[in-house]
Amino acid sequence: MMVHFSIMPISNQSSLSGPIAKALKIIHESGLEYRLTPMGTLIKGEWNDIMKVIKKCHEAVREEHDRVMTQIKIDDSKTREYSFDDKVKAVEEKAGMTFKK
Amino acid sequence: MMVHFSIMPISNQSSLSGPIAKALKIIHESGLEYRLTPMGTLIKGEWNDIMKVIKKCHEAVREEHDRVMTQIKIDDSKTREYSFDDKVKAVEEKAGMTFKK
Amino acid sequence: MMVHFSIMPISNQSSLSGPIAKALKIIHESGLEYRLTPMGTLIKGEWNDIMKVIKKCHEAVREEHDRVMTQIKIDDSKTREYSFDDKVKAVEEKAGMTFKK
Amino acid sequence: MMVHFSIMPISNQSSLSGPIAKALKIIHESGLEYRLTPMGTLIKGEWNDIMKVIKKCHEAVREEHDRVMTQIKIDDSKTREYSFDDKVKAVEEKAGMTFKK
Repeated sequence: MMVHFSIMPISNQSSLSGPIAKALKIIHESGLEYRLTPMGTLIKGEWNDIMKVIKKCHEAVREEHDRVMTQIKIDDSKTREYSFDDKVKAVEEKAGMTFKK
Repeated sequence: MMVHFSIMPISNQSSLSGPIAKALKIIHESGLEYRLTPMGTLIKGEWNDIMKVIKKCHEAVREEHDRVMTQIKIDDSKTREYSFDDKVKAVEEKAGMTFKK
Repeated sequence: MMVHFSIMPISNQSSLSGPIAKALKIIHESGLEYRLTPMGTLIKGEWNDIMKVIKKCHEAVREEHDRVMTQIKIDDSKTREYSFDDKVKAVEEKAGMTFKK
Repeated sequence: MMVHFSIMPISNQSSLSGPIAKALKIIHESGLEYRLTPMGTLIKGEWNDIMKVIKKCHEAVREEHDRVMTQIKIDDSKTREYSFDDKVKAVEEKAGMTFKK
C-alpha cells in the first residue's frame, strides 16, 4: 500500500521544518521506500511497517510539542502494486503528455 | 487522543453505506468511545487501540473491494483530554452562542 | 454537495476554540445548512456559496495568525441529495442497528 | 498560498489515472505553478485563481461520474512565500542531510 502522511505540531513556530526534519530522519532510517514532497511524505510498504514508523514520528514530534495533528491517507490496492513513478506515469500516459513533477 | 477517520472503497456502488456499516459494527464492538458523523467517524482512545480497530475496519472493507482509501486524522494533546462534547462546547463558549450540531 | 472542513492556525495557542468560534459565527450567519462536529464543520449547499463562506472564514482566521491551514473535503453526488441525517441513517439501516452519534 | 488537492470519482474503474489526467490538463493549461505527485497535485497561487481551476477540474470529472470526492488542503502563510523546492530544502537543511524526493 501507499500512504501520504503529514505531521503538524500546534506551536508558536510558524516554521514546521524542524519537527518535519525529525520525522524524516526516522522514516529514512526505517528502510521503507519514501518520498518527501512539499506538503507531505509518501511511504510504501505493509500496514504494520508503515504504522510503526508513523507512530514513531508522531511520538518524536509530540515529545517537544503539547499538541500534534497527524494525518494519514492510505491507498490500498489488492490488484496493483504501483511504484511512486508508476502512478505519475499512468496519468501522463492517459493524458498523452508530460506534466511538471 | 481523538481520531477522525473515513473508509472509501473505489467501487461501482455510488452508495458507500454498506461498507461503512460493516466498519461501524467493528468499531461499536471494540468498546472504544466513538461517534458516527455524516462524513466520517470519530474515535477516542490510545494510539494502539484505535489503530488496531481501524486496521480491522480497513481489512473488512478491502476483502470485498479491490481498492480502498482510508483516511485518518489524529488530534493528540498532551495536556488536555477532551470528550467529544467538550470540543463543541469550547467553541460555543468562545463564541458566546450555540451552534447547530 | 456536502463539505467537511476545518481551519487550523499554526500558533502558540494550543486551544483552537477561539479561531474556530470566529469561523462558526460566519457560517451560522451565512444561512447555509451546517453542523459543528468535534473535529470539523459540515456545510451543505452549492460550490460557489460554500466556497465563498469558507474563504471568508479562512481570511478571518488569517487576519490574526501568520499561518493558517484550511482543509476541505467535498462529497458531490449527481443523483442523490442527502441531508446530514440521511447519511447517518443510511449506515444504520444497512447495519440493522443504531450507532452513537 | 500552496494547495494540495486530489479528485476521486466513486466509480467502478479501480484505475483513477483517466479522470486525473483530465484534471491535470486543466491545471497545466491554467498557467498556475503546479506539481503532479503520486497521491495528489500541488498548486501555487492566489485563493481565487486556485479555486477557479479546482472547480473546473471537479466539474470535468463529475460530468462523467455520478459521485466525486475532491479534497483540498490549503497552506497559507502571510510572512513566507515558499516555492515547492524551498519547502523540501528547508526540511533538508534542518536535518543536515538529503532525503529522497
